[in-house]
Amino acid sequence: MKKDKPKYKMIIDAAVVVIAENGYHHAQVSKIAKQAGVADGTIYLYFKNKEDILISLFEEKMGQFVQSIRTRMSDKTDAIDQLKILVDSHFNMLAEDHHLAIVTQLELRQSNKDIRLRINKVLKEYLVLVDEVLQNGVDNGVLSEDLDIRLARQMVFGTIDEVATSWVINDQKYSITDLAPGVHTLLVKGLRK
Amino acid sequence: MKKDKPKYKMIIDAAVVVIAENGYHHAQVSKIAKQAGVADGTIYLYFKNKEDILISLFEEKMGQFVQSIRTRMSDKTDAIDQLKILVDSHFNMLAEDHHLAIVTQLELRQSNKDIRLRINKVLKEYLVLVDEVLQNGVDNGVLSEDLDIRLARQMVFGTIDEVATSWVINDQKYSITDLAPGVHTLLVKGLRK
Repeated sequence: MKKDKPKYKMIIDAAVVVIAENGYHHAQVSKIAKQAGVADGTIYLYFKNKEDILISLFEEKMGQFVQSIRTRMSDKTDAIDQLKILVDSHFNMLAEDHHLAIVTQLELRQSNKDIRLRINKVLKEYLVLVDEVLQNGVDNGVLSEDLDIRLARQMVFGTIDEVATSWVINDQKYSITDLAPGVHTLLVKGLRK
Repeated sequence: MKKDKPKYKMIIDAAVVVIAENGYHHAQVSKIAKQAGVADGTIYLYFKNKEDILISLFEEKMGQFVQSIRTRMSDKTDAIDQLKILVDSHFNMLAEDHHLAIVTQLELRQSNKDIRLRINKVLKEYLVLVDEVLQNGVDNGVLSEDLDIRLARQMVFGTIDEVATSWVINDQKYSITDLAPGVHTLLVKGLRK
C-alpha cells in the first residue's frame, strides 16, 4: 500500500504545514515537495493533484483521530464519559498541531462542490461515531429517550466545531483544552434525560 | 447614499443568484451585471470588485435580518421566547431564499483571510444579538446563572449553523423550518437554570 510508505506520510505532514501557512489556493505542489524534501515528481507517485493531497491529508488525520478516540472509549460504557473523551480528544488534537487546526477549521471549508462532497465522506466516519455514542446513551437510559439523534449530533458537532473555529480565527491565543469541561457540561445538559 | 439606490439592491440580488449558481470563484462580475440587467461598468460605480460585492451582500442581508429579528423580539422579554424567534427567523430566512442559503452556508466560507475577517465583522452584529438574549436570560433568572455566555453563544450559533449547512449540503431536500422546534428545545434544555 502506498499509504504505508514513509514518503506518503512525509508529504502529508509537509502539506499540512504548507497549506496552513499559505492557504490552499497558494499552496503549490512544488512548495509541498520542497517542505517534504522530495522532488516535485515524487508527489505525483502518491497523489493525483493538489486536491487529492488535501482530501488524503484529511482522510489520514481523521482516520487516526477516530481510531484513537475509539481506543480511548473502549473501556467506557457510559455515554456521558464517552462524550467527555470525544470533546477532550477533539480539542487536544487541535491544540497539539496548530497547522492542522488551521487546515481543518479554515482551509478544508472549500466551496468547490467536488471537494466538499469528498470531505463530507471522510467526516462521516466521525459523525457515525457521535451517533453511536448518542444512541448508546439513549439505549442505556442516560440520555433523553425522545432525543432526535440527527439534531443532537448536529448540536454536538456544531458546538465543538464553532468553538474550534473561533479559537483558530482568534489566532489560537487562548487554551482550547481549557474550554473542554464547559463545552461538555453544556452539551450533556442539553442531551440528558 | 449609494446603498439606498435601487441599482445597488438589484446588483446585490443578482450577485446572490450568480454566486449561488456558479460558486464565488466562477461568478464573474460580467455575469452579475448581466443577471442584474446593467452594464458591466455600472457595477464599479457601486462596488470596488467581486470581493466587495460578496461582503456588501452579506452586510446588506445580515443587516436586514438582525433588524427584523430585533423588531420581532421587541415585545418579548423572556429569553426562551427570544431564542425561539431567533431560531425560527434564521431558518425561515434560509428557507425563503435558496440562493441566499447556498451563499451564506457555503460560499461565504472563504479561506482568504481578508475576506474572512470582513465577514466576521458583519457576523458580529448577529452574535452580539445572541449574547444580549443570553445575558437577558441570565439576568432574569431564566437561564443558568453560571452560564459562560461566550460558550453558550458558540453552542447556539454552532448548532443553528450546522443544521443549516447540513440542510444545504443535502440540497435543501427536507423542510428546515420543521426542525426549528426541536433545535429550540435542545438548546433551551442546555441553557436553562
